[in-house]
Amino acid sequence: MGLGEMLIEMKNISELMIDLAYSALIYNNREIAEEVKYLEEKVDETYYRIQEAAIKQAIEDGEPSKALIVIRLATSIEAISDSAVQIADVVLRDIEPHPIIKESIRESDITITLGKVSENSILANKTLGELNLASETGMWVIAIKRGGKWIFGPTENTKILPNDILIAKGPIEGVKHFKNLCRGKDRKL
Amino acid sequence: MGLGEMLIEMKNISELMIDLAYSALIYNNREIAEEVKYLEEKVDETYYRIQEAAIKQAIEDGEPSKALIVIRLATSIEAISDSAVQIADVVLRDIEPHPIIKESIRESDITITLGKVSENSILANKTLGELNLASETGMWVIAIKRGGKWIFGPTENTKILPNDILIAKGPIEGVKHFKNLCRGKDRKL
Repeated sequence: MGLGEMLIEMKNISELMIDLAYSALIYNNREIAEEVKYLEEKVDETYYRIQEAAIKQAIEDGEPSKALIVIRLATSIEAISDSAVQIADVVLRDIEPHPIIKESIRESDITITLGKVSENSILANKTLGELNLASETGMWVIAIKRGGKWIFGPTENTKILPNDILIAKGPIEGVKHFKNLCRGKDRKL
Repeated sequence: MGLGEMLIEMKNISELMIDLAYSALIYNNREIAEEVKYLEEKVDETYYRIQEAAIKQAIEDGEPSKALIVIRLATSIEAISDSAVQIADVVLRDIEPHPIIKESIRESDITITLGKVSENSILANKTLGELNLASETGMWVIAIKRGGKWIFGPTENTKILPNDILIAKGPIEGVKHFKNLCRGKDRKL
């Protein structure tokens, strides 16, 4: 994986972590909060690989400025993921979240939702590009959990498979339709 | 403004800052990077007000746990906004961004775009709820800049006015249509 791709992966994971951390808080869900902690390990791994690759490239180029920018960016993204862990920690520390936070966050227009794709869902075995889900329903698939592994920042070529857990972000009014599409209840976009 | 509302405002601003910081980086745009710095002041202000209100409430309740959670959350959100400033700083430090970063970020499916609403745009003088923009076009309005002031996390009741600058997030393929809707060239969603 090249430097650029690694940075993008780090960016995608850190953004997913922020989304998941707030969701864990809103729904007081320890499982999602634990997922944030797991993702932090992925970020740290990528951070280390980026630093290594950037310095190797600096030696190759005989020039420090590119490596400096890359490392500075990676450091900022790493800090974002640390903040997400701190937010998730509020859930993991066994204290009932402050109801004011819960209610106020729910009021926000945009939400994150999870949907498990059934065998007979019209989403199954189609790519995101074919489905045009974001434009058709307002819900974007920001990540996919497949058999214990994550796909971050899926592209239009990413194919949805039965049993995938889709993490989507979108307006609250789109959630019900999205969940029904996943479970095969709604038969058209 | 209550504690919950202030936290949500802080969350919305910090997320906008992250989005703007990456945009500044992709387009090498100093003006957007400066906007991130300006927003940091707003976050710091809100952070201070939250700490004050949380401690006052703790005194009122005679109980520390709620104040602790609120302050811990606000601190994490403040750290996110600091990271956004660091990303924007890469643009402001006069070094040409690493092309690998630029190109790789452009490859990402989801982007942020700005559109200025013209007098004759079909978006003008309608609320976001009436327009149903997110579900119809896949593009969400995440913030509005109106006459030098920001509206963060607009709701379905937020009315779009002529000359508003809309900041929207969505799939790359939705950008052209969105910009044409803003400038009044496209006459239907």
